[in-house]
Amino acid sequence: MKPQMRPYLSCVTAFRDGSDSPSAYLERCLATIEAKESDIAAFVSLDIAGAREAALQSSKRWQAGDPSSPIDGMPIGVKDIMETAALPTGEGSPLFEGRNTRRDAAVVAALRSAGAIVLGKTVTTEFAAVSPGPTRNPWDPSRTPGGSSSGSAAAVACGMIPVGLGTQVIGSTIRPASFCGCYGFKPSVHALNRGGSFDYKSHSVTTVLAASLDELWIVGRQMALRCGGDYGHVGLQGPLTVPPAVTPKAVILLETAGWTAASPEAKAEIEKLVANLWDVGVRVHTRRTHADVAAVEDALATASDLAASINIWEDQWPLNTYARDLDESKISDIMRKRLRSAATMTQEKYGECLIERERVRSIYEMLSSIGAVCLTLSASGPAPVGFPTGDPTFAIPASILGIPAISLPGMHVDGLPVGLQLMGFKGKDSALFAHAASIARILSNLQD
Amino acid sequence: MKPQMRPYLSCVTAFRDGSDSPSAYLERCLATIEAKESDIAAFVSLDIAGAREAALQSSKRWQAGDPSSPIDGMPIGVKDIMETAALPTGEGSPLFEGRNTRRDAAVVAALRSAGAIVLGKTVTTEFAAVSPGPTRNPWDPSRTPGGSSSGSAAAVACGMIPVGLGTQVIGSTIRPASFCGCYGFKPSVHALNRGGSFDYKSHSVTTVLAASLDELWIVGRQMALRCGGDYGHVGLQGPLTVPPAVTPKAVILLETAGWTAASPEAKAEIEKLVANLWDVGVRVHTRRTHADVAAVEDALATASDLAASINIWEDQWPLNTYARDLDESKISDIMRKRLRSAATMTQEKYGECLIERERVRSIYEMLSSIGAVCLTLSASGPAPVGFPTGDPTFAIPASILGIPAISLPGMHVDGLPVGLQLMGFKGKDSALFAHAASIARILSNLQD
Repeated sequence: MKPQMRPYLSCVTAFRDGSDSPSAYLERCLATIEAKESDIAAFVSLDIAGAREAALQSSKRWQAGDPSSPIDGMPIGVKDIMETAALPTGEGSPLFEGRNTRRDAAVVAALRSAGAIVLGKTVTTEFAAVSPGPTRNPWDPSRTPGGSSSGSAAAVACGMIPVGLGTQVIGSTIRPASFCGCYGFKPSVHALNRGGSFDYKSHSVTTVLAASLDELWIVGRQMALRCGGDYGHVGLQGPLTVPPAVTPKAVILLETAGWTAASPEAKAEIEKLVANLWDVGVRVHTRRTHADVAAVEDALATASDLAASINIWEDQWPLNTYARDLDESKISDIMRKRLRSAATMTQEKYGECLIERERVRSIYEMLSSIGAVCLTLSASGPAPVGFPTGDPTFAIPASILGIPAISLPGMHVDGLPVGLQLMGFKGKDSALFAHAASIARILSNLQD
Repeated sequence: MKPQMRPYLSCVTAFRDGSDSPSAYLERCLATIEAKESDIAAFVSLDIAGAREAALQSSKRWQAGDPSSPIDGMPIGVKDIMETAALPTGEGSPLFEGRNTRRDAAVVAALRSAGAIVLGKTVTTEFAAVSPGPTRNPWDPSRTPGGSSSGSAAAVACGMIPVGLGTQVIGSTIRPASFCGCYGFKPSVHALNRGGSFDYKSHSVTTVLAASLDELWIVGRQMALRCGGDYGHVGLQGPLTVPPAVTPKAVILLETAGWTAASPEAKAEIEKLVANLWDVGVRVHTRRTHADVAAVEDALATASDLAASINIWEDQWPLNTYARDLDESKISDIMRKRLRSAATMTQEKYGECLIERERVRSIYEMLSSIGAVCLTLSASGPAPVGFPTGDPTFAIPASILGIPAISLPGMHVDGLPVGLQLMGFKGKDSALFAHAASIARILSNLQD
């Protein structure tokens, strides 16, 4: 049976009239967890008693017509790279299993203050990087859910929770959203406060995986309203309600470095969409029709190498202190290898990488005068069999560019999900949602 | 007896020829600590055994002519807001007394990799903010050492250590350096990697307090070489050796909002220096002689309010989670009050503050075409009697502007130190040191 997502926001009218309640919603989530968690392994830990108590309080607020926010009572999974006061934070590493830092990350504190419920910590790969955790893909347990936000994506995709928090520095949200068939939102860099997240890299960002496009926006916006962006950045701005759909006049098809390795069936899906966009009057620019698009494709050709070089410097700390002062044997081979290459990076070379990143960003910015949104695949095809987390190539451009990106479910190859990735312009996250709402509708009409 | 500082770099020639050693140097520090710590209370904890072992290894490296860096063997105090693998990190709060996070902050890992020795954790005010710790001023134990980097400043000033790490978001380094009569360096914002420092605010920066101007630069540069700036920033750049003295053609006297409250004797000291600068051929611009200087003074008039508003938003997390999930009674009254005002700040208002900060920064930047360096007092006068940490007004402009600032000792009022503050331009820290070396010489000639 196909995994079914479980949106929350569509239930809140019934919370007000008493025909449904956050407590009843939570029990439906818990039943799904009970049925599927042994196969999926999405969670590191759960706080069922705490969640039930919080849901009861929330149910009362909804019935009194006085919810703390539109997401009051929403059960949320928090990627186990972010601190939580009630549950340990293990970073997907045996070095930190069971460690309780006794505080909430900024976004977690914000969610709780909005009335949302931290139901559990979701599986992350080791240090939100490469070495996978135990989570399996809800569409086919022989396949990876993707990484590093593996648990949040899998749990959302099969209806255990409506929303999970993730992060993305390479492909950690767009890829698992694609593989698991849920909605994913990587905001503009710095748009959500990373205080208390063991996620330090310079173009990394806190993300949202959700059962609907609306939930991506509302949850992101409710967090930013309370804790803003990384300090020094105002954070995600825009309406508190969902940005209304706006059909773009023109969009840009970006192939990116991932195109040559992408599955022909996945490319056929996106080409079908492109044909349909033309049919409904949306112009589609490509590298073959517009020189500026070609210039961006060229600038992005080496994005993977650039992202890898930046990460190598930014992996140095804290991994150097873990390797020296803790039990190095508990660090994965792949991470120890990465740490050894970090020793070869210099401050000077890192500075050159930052300049190159700025250059690529300024080239991309040109596209804003050509099209409202860029579209491409979220991954090169469906989730592969096995447990390396899969190819992140398609997700890297938005990461390195610091731009907002959304993965929409709705395309399929061999009965498995492949995401449609929409990319906007830095700080223009709200506009991206307006266009995404329109394109999601077009995509949905196509699938019917 | 006047407190005496104990420079380290001037000893290294003797380390090479064996007439002195890091071990012998460490013992001199330990003897001073033994003699004075009960009066001064600069340290939260000491790792004497670990330091002796590390000094022994360093002594061997120096004797073999193979030191890991110019600061190999240097005993360093680390403000207790930064994580250290070997010693607990308490943040000056009873909430976190004895907590061991089991890892080194990025700069601490960098220092250790350069061969420097973490001798101990130095006292910070609560959360590096307002509520004072037990440290006393080595010039007069009835007076404050200033804050928040109280322990590092006091310990350096009386020769317990040559160098201590600090932080500054308001006046936490320039002020205690002034009150204790040591050298202080607040680098450009983001110039030193804050990974692993419980110091999150957007214009806060990791700082150095030292027994000499040379040590400020060398220690800062050795850290940046190994861990760079905050991720996304290349960090402190420039020569690995001390920038040679350059006498500026013109400087700017900035009065700032602190001038009206400054002690007449302190102002007389700086006016004496200004007269001497003219004598040696350095032009001195002021708000009365140059319209651009007046414009900067006007723009800085409300810097304290702006800094306070920004801090109020940025205090919200993590203090909201400490107040909710830990023992709120262990948070000082003044911090709880600040946290309550945080609840009144909005994301929108914070965004306006960030725009205003950018505006003030761009106005200040104009001065770079008028003078090489700005000078003013580091504090309104000598350390006051009692233990509130004293007026930070003079330190706020450099904090809010994100520019590098140095506090030079050498001026005195009533036999107590008052610092001369030199301020440069963002990212031009190396140039500031070149000018500071020249001005320090002029100041020193004046005092002889």
